Amino acid sequence: MLYSEMNKEQLAAEKKTVEGLYEELKAKDLKLTMARGIPAPEQLDLSINMLLHCLDGDCKSKSGIDCRSYGVLDGIPEAKELFMDMLKVGADEVIVGGNSSLQMMYDTIIRALQLGVYGSEKPWCKYDSVKFICPAPGYDRHFAMCEALGIEMITVEYNEDGPDMDEVERIAASDESVKGIWCVPMYSNPTGITYSDEVVRRMANLKPAAKDFRIFWDNAYCVHHLYGDHSELLNIIEECKKAGNPDMVFEFSSTSKISFPGGGLAVICASKNNIDFIKKQMAFQTIGFDKLNQLRHAKFFKNYEGITEHMRFHAAIIRPKFEIVLYMLEKELLPLGIGKWTSPKGGYFISFNSENGCAKRIVALAKEAGVVLTDAGATYPYGKDPNDSNIRIAPTYPSVNDLRQAMELFCVCVRLATLEKLLAE
Amino acid sequence: MLYSEMNKEQLAAEKKTVEGLYEELKAKDLKLTMARGIPAPEQLDLSINMLLHCLDGDCKSKSGIDCRSYGVLDGIPEAKELFMDMLKVGADEVIVGGNSSLQMMYDTIIRALQLGVYGSEKPWCKYDSVKFICPAPGYDRHFAMCEALGIEMITVEYNEDGPDMDEVERIAASDESVKGIWCVPMYSNPTGITYSDEVVRRMANLKPAAKDFRIFWDNAYCVHHLYGDHSELLNIIEECKKAGNPDMVFEFSSTSKISFPGGGLAVICASKNNIDFIKKQMAFQTIGFDKLNQLRHAKFFKNYEGITEHMRFHAAIIRPKFEIVLYMLEKELLPLGIGKWTSPKGGYFISFNSENGCAKRIVALAKEAGVVLTDAGATYPYGKDPNDSNIRIAPTYPSVNDLRQAMELFCVCVRLATLEKLLAE
Repeated sequence: MLYSEMNKEQLAAEKKTVEGLYEELKAKDLKLTMARGIPAPEQLDLSINMLLHCLDGDCKSKSGIDCRSYGVLDGIPEAKELFMDMLKVGADEVIVGGNSSLQMMYDTIIRALQLGVYGSEKPWCKYDSVKFICPAPGYDRHFAMCEALGIEMITVEYNEDGPDMDEVERIAASDESVKGIWCVPMYSNPTGITYSDEVVRRMANLKPAAKDFRIFWDNAYCVHHLYGDHSELLNIIEECKKAGNPDMVFEFSSTSKISFPGGGLAVICASKNNIDFIKKQMAFQTIGFDKLNQLRHAKFFKNYEGITEHMRFHAAIIRPKFEIVLYMLEKELLPLGIGKWTSPKGGYFISFNSENGCAKRIVALAKEAGVVLTDAGATYPYGKDPNDSNIRIAPTYPSVNDLRQAMELFCVCVRLATLEKLLAE
Repeated sequence: MLYSEMNKEQLAAEKKTVEGLYEELKAKDLKLTMARGIPAPEQLDLSINMLLHCLDGDCKSKSGIDCRSYGVLDGIPEAKELFMDMLKVGADEVIVGGNSSLQMMYDTIIRALQLGVYGSEKPWCKYDSVKFICPAPGYDRHFAMCEALGIEMITVEYNEDGPDMDEVERIAASDESVKGIWCVPMYSNPTGITYSDEVVRRMANLKPAAKDFRIFWDNAYCVHHLYGDHSELLNIIEECKKAGNPDMVFEFSSTSKISFPGGGLAVICASKNNIDFIKKQMAFQTIGFDKLNQLRHAKFFKNYEGITEHMRFHAAIIRPKFEIVLYMLEKELLPLGIGKWTSPKGGYFISFNSENGCAKRIVALAKEAGVVLTDAGATYPYGKDPNDSNIRIAPTYPSVNDLRQAMELFCVCVRLATLEKLLAE
């Protein structure tokens, strides 16, 4: 029976039942986490040969570079080629960095604040305020980064096919202190949405008031398909060229969830003008990133086909986990008519929306019973979900059995929080 | 015969002879570089087993951390221990980073500019100007970094035992926009000087006008001894504690010239207050550095004794090269009474001072004949050596035979430039 069709008495009786279930599960003393998008150990085992047998004693790139030594700021050719094929960009449109795309984003922004980007009239910190457009729910670390660096965030909602582009266009054009927008365009964190062609084209055709406005295109999940029938994303760098805005986008990606979260490769792609400018700035920061790890990746994956094949094995490990989460939600919550959730075709998250005003309570109930979820609100700027509704579920790290238990508890917590709310109305 | 004792005719005759020598060497069509402090390939071979056989399939730190995955911002325990023993600091006084100490320095400064350091009243960029004290000759990348970030440099000369501390004390106390000083305290780049105990203590006892003044202590060559009878450096972090200035120093080091320039580990050490503050800032930039490389280093070196033993083998490779440079200078220039040079007990450089006004000409002559030296002036702020006298010689990379030829040419260039100057007077 749908909760919406229950009267107060029925709701009270149901609450008593659900409280019983909650206490039973709590007594199990679970210690599980679905808080962050972390690959499971067996996913990391897929790349283990990269560490064991990949480098011979020579350590030379095919162009003759000794990868043990200094230099080569933008990455060795074979590492660049991996990403050029993955993201469809040219050799002069890419810099292969260290182990963290987050670090590349942070460095890009802090340099923009202190020094400006290609085409800036002045460093961003010389404006009274710097603002970023933040489609939400989104990636908490993007928002935390803005907050830490004193960048004001303007929230924009998602539609089915990406951010609300009417709003994005309006805000970008409104004020030259609006300097950027955060996008996770493919299998978005946490919604799982992939931007439609129309959204990508409208993004590329933005007419921002700021001449040095930048789209921060965090393409973290570009090859992270769960199914053969996968989403496709237009190439933003190409679309920006077509739109006459070739310098308007910084694209980021990494192998954090392809090889190793702690020892992968990060990459920034952009127009040649941007890349040349960044390299000039970056040359004062470092002589070069870890080329031995670049060589390891190039030798292990060989080429883009090697990466796509590799991702099939990842999918084989994590697809069943997504399906368990969805199965449990459908079994436990659909008949009650409470909650909405996404069924992503890729990425690392399932986005769950409770009745308004229940998310914090659900997360707290789950935590009390031993299951850690991403903090409610974390997916919104300043950690403030205006509806207190969104919860990000990260199913990849727990084992299937742990996940079953965690989702049992989760569904009970959703029911309990919803009943508390309905009875208080 | 000393050049100073020659009359014009003798000088002219000598010049004719030396011009002949120069043309002969030029005809050899050399292609050599002594420009930068780069380890030779055979030095890198010393660490090759780190890449081949060091990680087993497990990749767990001794504390159970899966080094392949996310997290552990300040480094795995065994990597921290290597540096704790090397630099004599506590576990809460160190962060092990990525592959570049230069990057850690740059990041530290750009964060200070944008956000401030522990104890700052406001971010450094909120001052009309930010100034650093720059003992010179010094490390060109320190100076270039300041210039790139808009930091004004105030040059201070070196004495035999370190920077002119009277000047350093005076300038630090003069103005609260003086926020830092660059130091390469051991086997200084390029002079080879190791700061005396008195200099270190005076440094630790500075009374800067700026409460958030920082000593940038780039201890790049802390274990890079050439001889058993090596220099000793006082522990600046301890001395700052004793002086009641516990938060006044950031110490940097790396294994770039211990393991691999492109794939080593960098480290920052400072007071717990500083480290906690940095970790809080850094958590927005990255989830963690490459722990697999940290594990590789810890397993390969095992402990600090492993590092010191390893450095003996490095010394065995590069000590003869230093000695060849010194032999050639003594043989070719000492009898003529031109030029002064250092005889460092460690580090990567020999610092050569020509007659005033000759350094640029010497470097140009050498380049024309196929030997690349560090640009004259590079060792001074803004690339401007007021005496046009200092040349940094980096003997580690060339083979012994190449070095012999390069030094033959170098000495001829010094003679020729000196003669040109003497004849023009």
